Amino acid sequence: MSEKMWQGRFEQPTDSLVEEFTSSIHFDRRLYRYDIQGSIAHCRMLAECGILTHEEASQIVQGLGEILREIDRGELALDATQEDIHMAVEQRLMQKIGEVGGKLHTARSRNDQIALDTRLFMRDVVLECRRLLLETVRLLTELAEKNLHVIMPGFTHLQHAQPVLLAHHLMAYVEMFLRDEERLAQCYDRINVLPLGSAALAGTTFPIDMEMTARALGFPRITRNSMDAVSDRDYLIEFCAASAMLMMHISRFAEELVLWSTEEFAFVDISDAFCTGSSIMPQKKNPDVPELMRGKTARVYGNLMALLTLVKSLPLTYNRDLQEDKEPAFDTADTVRLTLAVLNKMLPELRFQGDRMEAAAAKGYALATEVADYLVRKGVPFRKAHHVVGQLVHHCEKLGKDFTDCTVEELKKFHKALDADLFGVLTLQSAVQRRMSHGGTSPQRVREAIGAVRIETTQRLERVNADTPRLS
Amino acid sequence: MSEKMWQGRFEQPTDSLVEEFTSSIHFDRRLYRYDIQGSIAHCRMLAECGILTHEEASQIVQGLGEILREIDRGELALDATQEDIHMAVEQRLMQKIGEVGGKLHTARSRNDQIALDTRLFMRDVVLECRRLLLETVRLLTELAEKNLHVIMPGFTHLQHAQPVLLAHHLMAYVEMFLRDEERLAQCYDRINVLPLGSAALAGTTFPIDMEMTARALGFPRITRNSMDAVSDRDYLIEFCAASAMLMMHISRFAEELVLWSTEEFAFVDISDAFCTGSSIMPQKKNPDVPELMRGKTARVYGNLMALLTLVKSLPLTYNRDLQEDKEPAFDTADTVRLTLAVLNKMLPELRFQGDRMEAAAAKGYALATEVADYLVRKGVPFRKAHHVVGQLVHHCEKLGKDFTDCTVEELKKFHKALDADLFGVLTLQSAVQRRMSHGGTSPQRVREAIGAVRIETTQRLERVNADTPRLS
Amino acid sequence: MSEKMWQGRFEQPTDSLVEEFTSSIHFDRRLYRYDIQGSIAHCRMLAECGILTHEEASQIVQGLGEILREIDRGELALDATQEDIHMAVEQRLMQKIGEVGGKLHTARSRNDQIALDTRLFMRDVVLECRRLLLETVRLLTELAEKNLHVIMPGFTHLQHAQPVLLAHHLMAYVEMFLRDEERLAQCYDRINVLPLGSAALAGTTFPIDMEMTARALGFPRITRNSMDAVSDRDYLIEFCAASAMLMMHISRFAEELVLWSTEEFAFVDISDAFCTGSSIMPQKKNPDVPELMRGKTARVYGNLMALLTLVKSLPLTYNRDLQEDKEPAFDTADTVRLTLAVLNKMLPELRFQGDRMEAAAAKGYALATEVADYLVRKGVPFRKAHHVVGQLVHHCEKLGKDFTDCTVEELKKFHKALDADLFGVLTLQSAVQRRMSHGGTSPQRVREAIGAVRIETTQRLERVNADTPRLS
Amino acid sequence: MSEKMWQGRFEQPTDSLVEEFTSSIHFDRRLYRYDIQGSIAHCRMLAECGILTHEEASQIVQGLGEILREIDRGELALDATQEDIHMAVEQRLMQKIGEVGGKLHTARSRNDQIALDTRLFMRDVVLECRRLLLETVRLLTELAEKNLHVIMPGFTHLQHAQPVLLAHHLMAYVEMFLRDEERLAQCYDRINVLPLGSAALAGTTFPIDMEMTARALGFPRITRNSMDAVSDRDYLIEFCAASAMLMMHISRFAEELVLWSTEEFAFVDISDAFCTGSSIMPQKKNPDVPELMRGKTARVYGNLMALLTLVKSLPLTYNRDLQEDKEPAFDTADTVRLTLAVLNKMLPELRFQGDRMEAAAAKGYALATEVADYLVRKGVPFRKAHHVVGQLVHHCEKLGKDFTDCTVEELKKFHKALDADLFGVLTLQSAVQRRMSHGGTSPQRVREAIGAVRIETTQRLERVNADTPRLS
Repeated sequence: MSEKMWQGRFEQPTDSLVEEFTSSIHFDRRLYRYDIQGSIAHCRMLAECGILTHEEASQIVQGLGEILREIDRGELALDATQEDIHMAVEQRLMQKIGEVGGKLHTARSRNDQIALDTRLFMRDVVLECRRLLLETVRLLTELAEKNLHVIMPGFTHLQHAQPVLLAHHLMAYVEMFLRDEERLAQCYDRINVLPLGSAALAGTTFPIDMEMTARALGFPRITRNSMDAVSDRDYLIEFCAASAMLMMHISRFAEELVLWSTEEFAFVDISDAFCTGSSIMPQKKNPDVPELMRGKTARVYGNLMALLTLVKSLPLTYNRDLQEDKEPAFDTADTVRLTLAVLNKMLPELRFQGDRMEAAAAKGYALATEVADYLVRKGVPFRKAHHVVGQLVHHCEKLGKDFTDCTVEELKKFHKALDADLFGVLTLQSAVQRRMSHGGTSPQRVREAIGAVRIETTQRLERVNADTPRLS
Repeated sequence: MSEKMWQGRFEQPTDSLVEEFTSSIHFDRRLYRYDIQGSIAHCRMLAECGILTHEEASQIVQGLGEILREIDRGELALDATQEDIHMAVEQRLMQKIGEVGGKLHTARSRNDQIALDTRLFMRDVVLECRRLLLETVRLLTELAEKNLHVIMPGFTHLQHAQPVLLAHHLMAYVEMFLRDEERLAQCYDRINVLPLGSAALAGTTFPIDMEMTARALGFPRITRNSMDAVSDRDYLIEFCAASAMLMMHISRFAEELVLWSTEEFAFVDISDAFCTGSSIMPQKKNPDVPELMRGKTARVYGNLMALLTLVKSLPLTYNRDLQEDKEPAFDTADTVRLTLAVLNKMLPELRFQGDRMEAAAAKGYALATEVADYLVRKGVPFRKAHHVVGQLVHHCEKLGKDFTDCTVEELKKFHKALDADLFGVLTLQSAVQRRMSHGGTSPQRVREAIGAVRIETTQRLERVNADTPRLS
Repeated sequence: MSEKMWQGRFEQPTDSLVEEFTSSIHFDRRLYRYDIQGSIAHCRMLAECGILTHEEASQIVQGLGEILREIDRGELALDATQEDIHMAVEQRLMQKIGEVGGKLHTARSRNDQIALDTRLFMRDVVLECRRLLLETVRLLTELAEKNLHVIMPGFTHLQHAQPVLLAHHLMAYVEMFLRDEERLAQCYDRINVLPLGSAALAGTTFPIDMEMTARALGFPRITRNSMDAVSDRDYLIEFCAASAMLMMHISRFAEELVLWSTEEFAFVDISDAFCTGSSIMPQKKNPDVPELMRGKTARVYGNLMALLTLVKSLPLTYNRDLQEDKEPAFDTADTVRLTLAVLNKMLPELRFQGDRMEAAAAKGYALATEVADYLVRKGVPFRKAHHVVGQLVHHCEKLGKDFTDCTVEELKKFHKALDADLFGVLTLQSAVQRRMSHGGTSPQRVREAIGAVRIETTQRLERVNADTPRLS
Repeated sequence: MSEKMWQGRFEQPTDSLVEEFTSSIHFDRRLYRYDIQGSIAHCRMLAECGILTHEEASQIVQGLGEILREIDRGELALDATQEDIHMAVEQRLMQKIGEVGGKLHTARSRNDQIALDTRLFMRDVVLECRRLLLETVRLLTELAEKNLHVIMPGFTHLQHAQPVLLAHHLMAYVEMFLRDEERLAQCYDRINVLPLGSAALAGTTFPIDMEMTARALGFPRITRNSMDAVSDRDYLIEFCAASAMLMMHISRFAEELVLWSTEEFAFVDISDAFCTGSSIMPQKKNPDVPELMRGKTARVYGNLMALLTLVKSLPLTYNRDLQEDKEPAFDTADTVRLTLAVLNKMLPELRFQGDRMEAAAAKGYALATEVADYLVRKGVPFRKAHHVVGQLVHHCEKLGKDFTDCTVEELKKFHKALDADLFGVLTLQSAVQRRMSHGGTSPQRVREAIGAVRIETTQRLERVNADTPRLS
């Protein structure tokens, strides 16, 4: 139990179990760099505004710099005897420079300080996620280009539907990840706002200059309402919601990798470096990495739900419940970054089994739509054509043969418009190449999509660079 | 049990319990207008592209128009004997115009059709939510202006912290709702994309013109990958996530209204029209509306969780699970719109009890920060000043008196810098007026904020109008 | 807008949008039977206790009986002009029998009335779910017995691990469903408690006899604290939590059916009656039913989350938020019952492809553990044996051959203890039969398990029957 | 990167980022005691069954004992270079006793081993939670007894409804916590089942004796199906669901404490030891402990959602996703135990302000139901009486007076049956004492409830003791 900085009005010391219960130092200590960075900017501003003398400010800034190095080097224990990272830093500051250290907390409160620290932290997190995502997009695009001519069964309901290009399938994920990056970029703008100076909840009576602090910390905007500034946690929830969608996309890709790695599908081989074995079965090579990616989606969902539950029905402004905001947000940040990094390392290690895919693509009457479309082009209403081909499938299935095994006479029993020229459209290549509609699976369209994504990725990277704060 | 349109290859009819289990007509029938609107645009495009004759198209369009009117007038039963709204319309079309009706489904699938219908539906929903939100902002701003000089206790931890303006408190919610509107506007852009023409999953072999369809339906963009287009549900999840945050904000406001309506707080009186009574206790006047707003937040959270769970780990492309996407999205749309509408009706009916608020604001040593700031301005380090005032509070509390009941001598026992001029800063008005920092609670700052929000609201309304699709 | 029964103290009528917002009749009307049943029991008790005259009670009971029949026959509109089912029934009663109808609400409140109605409803729901679950268990057990000798690949990480009996695989689900039934049975006991007589929150001043009401309605227990009785929603949350686990189990089974129905696995054929086709691809036969089962799990999760969120941090006792408890609970009840009913209809229609399964079971070095165990029995430490076999697998894989394709000399290069007798254990039959440990996959153990489950199912059915309330 | 035990068939080593991604040692190391305990029991059983020699077993058991002590003393680093706790222990064992250590893993797999470890861990957790809960019940009951005659306003909709005893209010929470304990006790029975011997998924070919292992580890039951045994996580989900309900109950109590600590309510004073101050406002004394209790409910909800999401749609049997089960379960276990411990320390420190409560109880026409009941006893139908009293309230409210300020003549204007004897029932004491119905708030009923709970608590403690495993 240590003396608390706010102890003035209290008669009894804090119960030790309560200290354990209420302490946040075990997780907010990772904000130390941001906390000190914010304090330095705050202190310099106080001096510029004449609230501290330049001499005082310089002592404080120097002290803070030393504390930063101490923590960097692991020389300063940040443990449960301290309440939180703010108090730990201030306490150490006063040990180093004496009472003048007590001037740092002028014109601010822990309420706006933690809002600042978390926003600084999240800014870095989101920028990193955006960079990682754009790298994922680049790698998928590369993979698509490399496999441009591999045909695979396109699935609906996990049944063979129509043949598609593997590249087209991969580019579907590119679309998802581009949406994710866009959402994160927009979330970033709402994170990138300075709350410091809102003080406890009502602003401060000291003549501070928030614009100066904002410039020093690279914030383009300042919060407009001090009560909102200290009680708002939207930026964390929004990040967790965007992350939930991102992980959902990864979970779909991971599910496919698990499926495609089975003995039964055998569409892909994941390199040994991304698999692990069994403690009992010597033959096993398990797709652990995609399995865990799928699994880690769950915790990111849970974190989102925790944050939403946390803030529901809280009256303004700060309530101690809000201390519980950091662990779910940190865990989401860590999970998303690590998962993306692993995904980016794994993507180039995927060996698609083009032959297996192509062989599979021909199975299951996947060209039935070609027959129906053929009939439509001969004037048969689509609905009628669909019905005719359905009966043809049923017929072939019973006899265990394919469309191309049928004679023209046999075909004509189903519809007189069916003729020998049908066989011309009954190849995988034809089926794929002729899907030329916008966003369709024909190689030409996919090549265009790859080109368009390349340009967009470059533009987005420039935007990420432009968004990266320049700290003064 | 009715004959299914896809029955060709099937031997057995669908089990009747399975029909009940798989049918979606009981909820997707509300999409009928969008479904028909989309079919008309599709059909006209098919004709323009020479896939249907103009004669065929005109028969179909006329038939669809009649069906629309039949449903509008309640003349066409849409019941569980039909699978879904698409089949119901197509079936009725064929009843009306015969086999040519079967040509409508050329170059499309239910997979892209439902994606279109849902996007059209969500487009209207989001536009309406944005309008409602901007109205909420306007009403709150008006309320703030009307109550600009009412002082109330600002709360942290639900304890009196510092006096604030009620207007400042209300404007904190304005900030939240403006963020909500911004999120919805960005979500809107991702909804407002045409998927029709993606067909089942791979695009189509017919020479369609998706740009033409997009123009007809007012879509500024077209999906870039057909496989993504039919399996993407991000726009629903994102809407539900944005709605969850929006309802969370409403739940906070509602919680305060419930609290402020208690006998103990008595800060607000909600008009009879927004309260209900008890079946047993004749004296009761219950704040049911805010209670239900708070409660309805729960279902919106649940819907978000349902959607995220639904799509997790689904392999590409369409899977029947996705049919379960609509009810949570519809319920969220309905809940959010109704809640906002009720909120907008209730806001002008709130009678704030300014006298009670102001009397309360003076209680609980809410001016203690003023004393500390006073000491800081006399050169005492903040941390020291905080400690001194803490002891002074403790002293006053034990004697059951207020700061202003102390003599100067008494004050000086706590710190020699405390003097008679202290009493000048110990008024609520002073405490509020001197919080002039950016975003602070001083009347001048709040008035500026009101002005800024007014301008922004107008700009945003213009953006909403610009976003409203012009259908050709 | 209708006159409200609690209108006495109000000056203004309820706003019509507020009526729509607060009304619950559109969902609580389905409780009508329970509401009337409860009212009849309450009324008879009031008469027995001398609070009403027998004459009054008899008029009321007769009136209620008529209302029940009116609603049964659809002759009494229950629409949004009424607040809720309680008020609708009471209003109709007073129309029928005049002011004496107003005596029914003596010594009770809507707070304990809705608690009663919901408990009566949930009692029936849970009993039905338990019966359905025990039927699922019976059907799975039958299926297991029918397929007792079919060998399939046992999977871990979706990779072939060791051969198992299909029957053993099916019996794993039996264990899950038995746990579900047990949880529901225990939940049932907590539902099956009478709250009526708790009145608004504090009990009543009238000399009621709750034991009499309990007997009439078949409740073995009475709530012990009136404040808890009217604010408790544990029984709904607990039901939703048990349902979430139950649906999770179904989702796992459904996932396997979807997987096993693929072209690639082809382990099972689901009958036409449980599949549907595609609107565009004539060849498609989709496993819609298991897909939807998987999908419906999501809404049940969402409902649980909604209920938990709803009740969090609500002060005692009744708050209007609680009105939002019914829709998630009803939806869960409907979903679970329908899903179980469909599952029970589908189970006998599954055609397992034993030959495909057995062929698959031999693939992927699934007998590697047999080799390792063989070495262990010859004294090689397991860890060493595991390593040796891992290298042997690697060797065979590179040469594209199976263990049994190796010569004894070849084997001995990996470990000298490997000898010709190894081949004796390298059959699927041997691998399965020798797993005789408790709960293992050997046919003998599985047959025993089937027997044990049969006995237990019978006992549980008896318990369900004993739990079924006898209403007087 | 360390050599993996299952490396035999692999060519490439695991990628180092993948090691970080897949490692579980940073959280499963806390299972070390259970892991070793299980291994010792397993090893002894192997020897008894003749699968190991007694000499081998004794070497292994001794080695394991030493490792346990090494970890206890912090001498054995358990870090990320190891995959998981099982491999870390086995590796260390082989370092200590050589190749014979490799015999320990005979007839088991990590799949059943982790199921065992987690069940052993959860067994202790649940027993501790049950003990803590029964202590909460005891403390609340004591508090109820101590405050048996304190009258407070009973709330519905947070409005004064009817006067109740504070003791009755507290005993409502007792009912909730008793339900929680019951649920945990039933969950305990489903945890308390031995899975070891299920091996990877199919059982083992070695002649093990699971009953012997069960006896050694104090398990009354053995899993009945090996595939279920290794893929079942119900016991974790069920624990998290029961914990979510428990935390929900705590959140309600915490919400009331926060509310009751406000300046406005002032119903309770929480001792300094359970409050903290503000970094900026010297006067603040914040109810941090109940705020955090409320907040921590959110993470427990999130953990439940994560676990449910995790297991949804996973095919049998073990999948690596399941590794993600432990952190949510551990975090829930830690949160619930710490929260209950803090609650139990705080309860005796609550100082209820009986005078404030009683003064409040009289406000807000809380005795209106008494007037209505009075009329009913004079033969007025309840509904009519309710209406009359509603008008009387309206009348009094407008004149700003209470019922008892009315003259008899004034009363008679509302109903002729209202007479001077009315005033006799218009006291808080009368209102409370006359609520004698079962579970009602009269002191007599509450005293009986306290007595009944005392007996039940004792019985339940005995059951907890009986449930505590005796390990041989």
